[in-house]
Amino acid sequence: MPIPSPQALAGSVLWRSLRVYQVYGANTEIGKTVFSTVLSKAARRHWPREKTAFLKPVSTGPLDEADDRHVRKFASEVAHETLHQFDLAVSPHIAARVSSQQTPSDDILLSSIHKFAAHRASLGPGWLFVETAGGVHSPGPSGSTQADMYAPLRLPVVLIGDSRLGGISTTISAFESLKIRGYDVETVLLFKEEKYQNHAYLTEYFGERHGIPVKTAPEPPTRAADAGSDANNMLRYYEDASASSPIADALAHLDTRHKQRISRLESMSATAHKTIWYPFTQQKHLSPDKITVIDSASGDNFQTLVPTKPDTDNTTALLRPSFDGSASWWTQGLGHGNPALTLAAAYAAGRYGHVMFAEAVHEPALALAETLLAGMGNARLRRVFYSDNGSTGAEVAVKMALRAARLRYGWGADEKVGVLGLRGSYHGDTIGAMDCAEPCVFNEKVEWYEGKGAWLDYPTVQCRAGRWVVESPAEMGGVAGGSREVSFDSLSDVFDVEAREARGEGRVYERVITDTLKRLQSEGRKFGALMLEPVVLGAGGMLLVDPLYQRTLVNVVRKSAHLFADGYDTASQATTDDNSEWTGLPVIFDEVFTGLYRLGRFSAGSLLGVDADISVHAKLLTGGLVPLCATLASESIFRAFESDDKSDALLHGHSYTAHAVGCQVALQSVTELRRMEVSGEWDWAMSAAQRESLQQLPSASIQNLAPGASVWSVWHPEFVDWLSRHAHVGGVWALGSVLAIHMSGADGAAGYKSDAARGLQASLLQAAGEDGNLHSRVLGNVLYIMAGQKTKEESVRRVERLVRRALEDVVE
Amino acid sequence: MPIPSPQALAGSVLWRSLRVYQVYGANTEIGKTVFSTVLSKAARRHWPREKTAFLKPVSTGPLDEADDRHVRKFASEVAHETLHQFDLAVSPHIAARVSSQQTPSDDILLSSIHKFAAHRASLGPGWLFVETAGGVHSPGPSGSTQADMYAPLRLPVVLIGDSRLGGISTTISAFESLKIRGYDVETVLLFKEEKYQNHAYLTEYFGERHGIPVKTAPEPPTRAADAGSDANNMLRYYEDASASSPIADALAHLDTRHKQRISRLESMSATAHKTIWYPFTQQKHLSPDKITVIDSASGDNFQTLVPTKPDTDNTTALLRPSFDGSASWWTQGLGHGNPALTLAAAYAAGRYGHVMFAEAVHEPALALAETLLAGMGNARLRRVFYSDNGSTGAEVAVKMALRAARLRYGWGADEKVGVLGLRGSYHGDTIGAMDCAEPCVFNEKVEWYEGKGAWLDYPTVQCRAGRWVVESPAEMGGVAGGSREVSFDSLSDVFDVEAREARGEGRVYERVITDTLKRLQSEGRKFGALMLEPVVLGAGGMLLVDPLYQRTLVNVVRKSAHLFADGYDTASQATTDDNSEWTGLPVIFDEVFTGLYRLGRFSAGSLLGVDADISVHAKLLTGGLVPLCATLASESIFRAFESDDKSDALLHGHSYTAHAVGCQVALQSVTELRRMEVSGEWDWAMSAAQRESLQQLPSASIQNLAPGASVWSVWHPEFVDWLSRHAHVGGVWALGSVLAIHMSGADGAAGYKSDAARGLQASLLQAAGEDGNLHSRVLGNVLYIMAGQKTKEESVRRVERLVRRALEDVVE
Repeated sequence: MPIPSPQALAGSVLWRSLRVYQVYGANTEIGKTVFSTVLSKAARRHWPREKTAFLKPVSTGPLDEADDRHVRKFASEVAHETLHQFDLAVSPHIAARVSSQQTPSDDILLSSIHKFAAHRASLGPGWLFVETAGGVHSPGPSGSTQADMYAPLRLPVVLIGDSRLGGISTTISAFESLKIRGYDVETVLLFKEEKYQNHAYLTEYFGERHGIPVKTAPEPPTRAADAGSDANNMLRYYEDASASSPIADALAHLDTRHKQRISRLESMSATAHKTIWYPFTQQKHLSPDKITVIDSASGDNFQTLVPTKPDTDNTTALLRPSFDGSASWWTQGLGHGNPALTLAAAYAAGRYGHVMFAEAVHEPALALAETLLAGMGNARLRRVFYSDNGSTGAEVAVKMALRAARLRYGWGADEKVGVLGLRGSYHGDTIGAMDCAEPCVFNEKVEWYEGKGAWLDYPTVQCRAGRWVVESPAEMGGVAGGSREVSFDSLSDVFDVEAREARGEGRVYERVITDTLKRLQSEGRKFGALMLEPVVLGAGGMLLVDPLYQRTLVNVVRKSAHLFADGYDTASQATTDDNSEWTGLPVIFDEVFTGLYRLGRFSAGSLLGVDADISVHAKLLTGGLVPLCATLASESIFRAFESDDKSDALLHGHSYTAHAVGCQVALQSVTELRRMEVSGEWDWAMSAAQRESLQQLPSASIQNLAPGASVWSVWHPEFVDWLSRHAHVGGVWALGSVLAIHMSGADGAAGYKSDAARGLQASLLQAAGEDGNLHSRVLGNVLYIMAGQKTKEESVRRVERLVRRALEDVVE
Repeated sequence: MPIPSPQALAGSVLWRSLRVYQVYGANTEIGKTVFSTVLSKAARRHWPREKTAFLKPVSTGPLDEADDRHVRKFASEVAHETLHQFDLAVSPHIAARVSSQQTPSDDILLSSIHKFAAHRASLGPGWLFVETAGGVHSPGPSGSTQADMYAPLRLPVVLIGDSRLGGISTTISAFESLKIRGYDVETVLLFKEEKYQNHAYLTEYFGERHGIPVKTAPEPPTRAADAGSDANNMLRYYEDASASSPIADALAHLDTRHKQRISRLESMSATAHKTIWYPFTQQKHLSPDKITVIDSASGDNFQTLVPTKPDTDNTTALLRPSFDGSASWWTQGLGHGNPALTLAAAYAAGRYGHVMFAEAVHEPALALAETLLAGMGNARLRRVFYSDNGSTGAEVAVKMALRAARLRYGWGADEKVGVLGLRGSYHGDTIGAMDCAEPCVFNEKVEWYEGKGAWLDYPTVQCRAGRWVVESPAEMGGVAGGSREVSFDSLSDVFDVEAREARGEGRVYERVITDTLKRLQSEGRKFGALMLEPVVLGAGGMLLVDPLYQRTLVNVVRKSAHLFADGYDTASQATTDDNSEWTGLPVIFDEVFTGLYRLGRFSAGSLLGVDADISVHAKLLTGGLVPLCATLASESIFRAFESDDKSDALLHGHSYTAHAVGCQVALQSVTELRRMEVSGEWDWAMSAAQRESLQQLPSASIQNLAPGASVWSVWHPEFVDWLSRHAHVGGVWALGSVLAIHMSGADGAAGYKSDAARGLQASLLQAAGEDGNLHSRVLGNVLYIMAGQKTKEESVRRVERLVRRALEDVVE
């Protein structure tokens, strides 16, 4: 049975003209159809000039007993439609299986509902009640439960409560199952039953806790002996119930809530413009119309407000889906609204809330630590330190490294010790993390920023005109043969670092790095860490670094203690049995962006074939739900903080350190990502050769392949090739779920301040065809797109088509 | 109907000898009692030498039809007991209401179950099945739903599924209601019914998603005409079912899970000791036995592992509750495992996951911003910037202030500009936040730390020998009349800052502050912010600062632009209509610890009667669930970042900025805290005069009282008085939910490195009477205790008794 998957183009349903409510039941046979009929009739009664409709997406049981027929009979004044009718009176997933009809997929069902509702909305003001089958979690035809299946529509809900013995429990539980999927239950309706009086309890419960009104109708008449008086009794019942004041109140409430929802959505951008101080945003350039109002999100998609004019535009859809192309600032992995992550978060919240972590331990923190250490496949890493985000985790890493280096090399507390890094590195927005980066547009205007280190130049990799080109800075004279550009047939060849090393391609890197270190030493510079974003520099402009260069840099640093501390000889250093002692400088890999499968492997650093002493993980760590960071370290680093003085400890620790909710969600995410890897869920994105190599491994883990053999991407090689040949594309690369298109626009400005990619970005957002549209972010002249780890092949292809069309339309 | 409240002393239930399982039903009448009977009989059959018991805490319906009687009849070999029997066959909350018996409170019910289970455990190895009534959310006698009511026991669950039509839905929803309360459902049992085949769907569903085995038993025989053959049929059914292999498998699984749970709990501290790098902890001094293993937490209490010896100690309770006296590092407000917070978190996770916040807005972020700005009651504050925790939020505040000051005063980017603060201030662990604090034990050994500012000395307040004493530094020569110590009758008098100001008590402060500012100016020092923790310095040692001093400091700084920028005259500055322009220096209030009712008011700064330009909020912001920070600022500060250059923007923004889960939880927390304030839920802790003043206000908001009139605390004045007279207490203060006891031990060391409070701390943790025990943290010679905002009066009194006894026992 499939985990409910993100719905490619399923959009939320909202029109000004049409009030659409989904009728869910706390259980089956509790009066769902009776209440739908009452509501439909009452809507007709109170809004006689408007159109009311009743939709049953899936119905089971013989046609003459079907709910649809019931509505036809007793509410003939209401339009009614059933989309899928199965004869057998069992749950739709069984009825569909034994039926001769083709089982509609979830996507198709949602599209059909959307289409039906859009048609109704086009007719002008009205009501539409969409009745579900059975209880909230009764399976639909595909086997997904309805609460999961219909979630992307995010229809407001009328929940029919259960008035029978036990009905308090089923009603509250059904409500909770809806609530934790992001549904808004707007009212609860149930029969007024005097013995158990569930309505009395539930009125107080939902009113006090959730501000949700509970309304009742009398129980329908008991079945009469002959069909004729039965029908008459029911007709009279419906006349009375649909005219009753509780039902009128309920409808008036639903009418108000519909208007409130739209009115709030439409005022949000103006209120936000006055109230919110946005991150990394020049608000002088921001106006309310540039603020995206996000109603909700599901799978790969945001559901955002479409600006319309109230007076003239009442039948246009107010919400539309947009593919979240920046993976919500690089965080998304398992899809928006993933019910497994929700349940993990809620479980930890229920079991612990947050519990203090100093000198204490709880299951999610410990299990996550064990899972991360095992998954990294880096024997050096033995310790996990938790903090709240990538920036704080980077500061923790630096505190760790600097102390270890200072103690070993005997530097005083007052000596200036920096980090060795790469130009364009970025490690976060807190001052300490900023200080690890060279002056750049992100930090140079920030008071108290003071770059503490030296940042080296390096060769980068791009696909240009169908070839994978490694371009070196002038000083390196090219990776081989003196040319500054060397090209490869494939990205796999670029990542075949061992073969390239064996061919001597690393020698020029080694020479240049050694010369640079000597020069820095001669200038009296001191360093306490080598700090790298392995493989890709994200915020620095989505730069793919030649992996052989980073590998060489790590290896040179490790054997060059004498270049960091005068007279210190790496060879003389005490070594440990497991070869886990740091040498030269502690090596920090900042995998906040690149790790946990963003680039296709659990550890991005493993693509270099060298192990870090300290490794930082965030963003995808929680699958894209809540902030959490884990800084992993070796025992060799850890021991530097052991002392008899408690103030020699690592002096860092946020109040919510190792918060249970984050750890439980991360445990769920990392476990799921590993499961997807091992069970071959990304096989579609791999080459046949890769799939074969993986199958030959005992564990099917990509990380057990050599770097060169493990390069893969969800972005199709032909698409990347096409892009690389486009006149306005300077270069492109794709790795894992990331695609980076470096535009070669006419715009003179370079880097972050460039606007070269803005045209393409706007065109992608405005796309209106069957492939939907794309919400993306740019970094100067780079437009990047990031799929989630659950994004399906067809969705990636759809985005590829969007990009192709946008590049054809806009630029040419 | 009360929101389920934290259970004072309800402990989780776990013994090595006794496997205790709670039998919950997806609905009523689905075979719960049948399965309990089958399980009991099967346990007897497969573990014949062990003791098996069946407990029904609450039963309704005539005694001769009761479940207990059923078990007696068909499983006479099993011990059975019913704690509360109500005759009427309706839900217990109604049955209890109409019954002549006294309704047992939730606390009493839990204690009775605990007592019964403890007795069974003392008999040696065995099983205990605790059967609930109706469905998971069926109300208990008090009206709380069972899932909430029994949560503190955290018994592992056998969930009886529903095999009828609709039963897939009710079973999954019931499971989710349990899961989000932190229950572990260990197995699902249901009847094997062939038409709907719910067992087939549920086996796949629970197996694949949750690793939970689903087992079946045949449906019981249909009722025979005569009672005799009916009983015989049932007897035969029970014999067969209890011997069946699915039930044997289920029990074997439960047996294994029981052992696994204990074995994991008992190995966790050793694994953590090898794997975790703890915050602010000298791990050389840490051994596994010092690591607290937290199984779960509920309300005010942790449930922690009690170390025992497996061979000899099989009947001792393995878990015990401890009052979370540090409020989990100052974060807790609404209680561990609060279901309203859980549901808020899960709702946002379901509706959004996390969605990118740059140039976008979503409801929880916007609603929270509006709620915070309204709640602060500070007309200056108009903008909300989100970050991930107090430390990052403090850095954001500093970035804001320094830019505003630098631009107004025309300082170059290279000029050294610091913050003006108080000695002992602490704003967080990231380097930038550390730099705002004077060198101290928390930062002075941290590489890259560089205190950037000047930190003033100030008078503090303590209760000593029954008097409230303001003690001034020598330079201030006392607040009045030259004495260094001035005493007041009450803390309210100390906080009556307007009256004290009118009496001229602030004059000496004003003089000393002005002199200091002049001296700093003459030394060429530049400042870009006044940064204060209002009222209480937390990490600095729980120091209560004379509010009149902080108020005077703000006022002096505001009118002293000439002391910060040569030739700049505050009077000449353009003023705004609403008087919201900052003057002198931007004033930052770091309310991370002190705000949101920790000290009794929404804004701690409001206790000073002056408004900040920038205000930082975290910890209690989310009620104690997940990290989130909001930095609030005035338009005057905001405008400093407006420019045509996008790199002049505030360059800060974490990936999870304004994450929906955190914002929704915070919205729920802040709204609930405000509701509690206005509805008088803290009346018990206030004086009669205060209650009366509040009732006369239109809004009943404490914040609308003058500072002096609004001082209150949950800690009893007589208890504080008693402490203040204790020989080993140097001084004490209580405000809001915080109690700080400054010990005057013989220990020579001062501050953080002192161990003076450790004896008291150990004694409180080891307490074993009916008042339970207390888990607390110390700061050097200060032992502080923090209640949650939902902690009940009786729990506070209990903790007070614990402290009294511990001080009597240990110190004297």
